[in-house]
Amino acid sequence: MKIAIGTSSFGFVDKTPLNLLTSKVNDVILNPYGRKLSEDEIIIHLKDIDGLIAGLEPLNYNVLKKCPNLKAIARVGIGMDNIDLKAASKLGIKISNTPDGPTESVAELTITAALTLTRSIISSNLKMHKKNWEKSISTGIKNLRVLIIGYGRIGKRVSKLLKIMGADVKIYDPYISQIDLENNEDLISLKKGLKFAQLITIHAAKNKKIISWEEFETMTPGVFILNSARGGLIDEKDLIKALDLNIVAGGWLDVFESEPYFGELTKYPQLLLTPHISTYTTQCRKDMEQMAVENLLKDLSIKT
Amino acid sequence: MKIAIGTSSFGFVDKTPLNLLTSKVNDVILNPYGRKLSEDEIIIHLKDIDGLIAGLEPLNYNVLKKCPNLKAIARVGIGMDNIDLKAASKLGIKISNTPDGPTESVAELTITAALTLTRSIISSNLKMHKKNWEKSISTGIKNLRVLIIGYGRIGKRVSKLLKIMGADVKIYDPYISQIDLENNEDLISLKKGLKFAQLITIHAAKNKKIISWEEFETMTPGVFILNSARGGLIDEKDLIKALDLNIVAGGWLDVFESEPYFGELTKYPQLLLTPHISTYTTQCRKDMEQMAVENLLKDLSIKT
Repeated sequence: MKIAIGTSSFGFVDKTPLNLLTSKVNDVILNPYGRKLSEDEIIIHLKDIDGLIAGLEPLNYNVLKKCPNLKAIARVGIGMDNIDLKAASKLGIKISNTPDGPTESVAELTITAALTLTRSIISSNLKMHKKNWEKSISTGIKNLRVLIIGYGRIGKRVSKLLKIMGADVKIYDPYISQIDLENNEDLISLKKGLKFAQLITIHAAKNKKIISWEEFETMTPGVFILNSARGGLIDEKDLIKALDLNIVAGGWLDVFESEPYFGELTKYPQLLLTPHISTYTTQCRKDMEQMAVENLLKDLSIKT
Repeated sequence: MKIAIGTSSFGFVDKTPLNLLTSKVNDVILNPYGRKLSEDEIIIHLKDIDGLIAGLEPLNYNVLKKCPNLKAIARVGIGMDNIDLKAASKLGIKISNTPDGPTESVAELTITAALTLTRSIISSNLKMHKKNWEKSISTGIKNLRVLIIGYGRIGKRVSKLLKIMGADVKIYDPYISQIDLENNEDLISLKKGLKFAQLITIHAAKNKKIISWEEFETMTPGVFILNSARGGLIDEKDLIKALDLNIVAGGWLDVFESEPYFGELTKYPQLLLTPHISTYTTQCRKDMEQMAVENLLKDLSIKT
C-alpha cells in the first residue's frame, strides 16, 4: 500500500496524524516541493499510489484517469472545488473531507471577538500603553442580546458558548425550524432579529449579500457586527455608512470581498480586523490532518 | 420603614433593583451628593433609617451608635473594611455583602484575555489597520495547558469556561483537596503547575507575592501570565526580567501594586493592560445592586 501527501505543511504543527499514518502504511510519500503541486507534478506524485491526503492540488479527470491504483482521496479541509467528484465517482475513488475540523477554531475566534468588543479591551489596552488610566463600564456577554445568522456547525457552537456565558441568543436561519435548535435558543425572522440584537454574528454559507443598507437601517443603533463567514455577505459601502452614522458601534471582520484587504475599513479603530485567520490554530491544523488520516485509512479498509 | 442608599450610582445602569426596593418600601432616600459620603454626612443621611444599601462610606462605631433604628446594612460589593463589624454585631445590626456579584464579570474578562493572547488578535488587528496582511498560526484555547492559581468563586468559573473550550486545566490551591474540584480538573503543586502551563491565571485572595523570580525560572518559556486578583501577587521587576528573557511571551494585567498605573510594563506591547475594570460591566453592577436589595429586604424580614 502506497500513500501520497498533497498538502505542503502536513505534520508541521504536530506529528501525531503523520505518525498514525506511517504506523499503518509503510510507504508514505510527502509533498517534495513544499508548495501546491501543479497538474503535471501531481500526476507524477500519484504514480502507483493507493490513497492521497489532498490539499488544493488539481484533481481533475485528466489527473485521476492516470492513477489506476488510486482508491481514496482524503481532503484536509472542507472545500472540494479542486476535485472532479463525478470523475472520482465513475472511477470508483472514495472521497472524504473534514467538515468538523474548523468548527472549534472559528467559534473560538468569534467568541474572542465578541468578548473583545463588548468588554472594550482594545481601546483600554491602547490607553494603558499611552499611560492613560481611564475606567469605563462595558456591557459584556451576560444578558447580551445576540442574533446568530446561520445555524450550521459553527453557528451552533458559537451559540452554545455564548449561552453558557449568559447571552440571550436568537437564531435566524431560513433552512431550519425550531426543532433543530439544540441549546434552547429561539428562531427569529431576520428583520426582528436585526432590531433585537446588540451583537450580530454571521455564520452563513450563502454567497449573496445578507446585510445591506436596508438591514443596517433596521438595526438598533450601537450594535456590534461580526463576520467570519464570507466577505461578500456584508455590503462594505453600506457598512461604512452605518459606521459613520453610529448605527454600528463596532465589529469584527475576518473575511473580505477581496483578500488581502487594504481598504477603507482599516481606517475605523472601532473595527477589530484579522487577516482571515479563523482556522489558523495549531489545534485546527492537527484536528483536520488527524481526521483526514482517519478518513483515508477507513476508506482503504485499514484498521486504526 | 425607611431605607437609605449610600452608593452614589445606585440604579444608574439599570432600574430593576431600585424598582424592587421602592415597590416594597415607601421611603427610599437616595445619596443626595452623587459621591461617597463623609462621616458627618452619613450620620445625617442615616437619621431614622431602618436599612442601608451601603457603598464605601465610613460605618464605624461612632456612626452606627447614632442610628438607633438601623437594623440592616447591605453592602453593594464584597469588601467590608468600611464597616465596623464588631460594633454592628453588638448593636444588633445585620450585615450582608454580595460575594457572587463580580464572579461572572471577572471570569468573563479573564477568558477575554486568555483568548486575545492565545489567538494573537491585538497584533493581527494592529497590522491590519496598518494595511499589513500577515497570517500567522496561533495556539488557541483547545488543548491549551492551563494552570489556575486559586479555586475560589472566580477560579472555579474560569476553569469551567476554559474546560468547555477544550483547555487542559490544572489547579493549584493549597486550601482545597481533589474532592473540592467541580469540573474534573486535577490538583497540582505550584512547581509542577508552573512547569506544565502554557497559560497561568491567578485568582488567589492572598496578599503576599506568589510569583517572583524563582517561579518565573520554573516556567516553560513562552508562557502567558494573567492577573486580575491583586497587583502585589506578581513581582513586577521579576516579570519585566522574565519578559526581557522571553520566558513570558505575553500576559494580561488588570491589577497593579500601585494604581493608577503608569509604570514600566506599559512599554511591553505583548502585555494586554486594562485599568482594573474586571468588574466594570453593566451586568455586574446590576447583579450586585439586585443582590444587595434582596439581602436587605431579607434581613428586614420583608417578603420579595
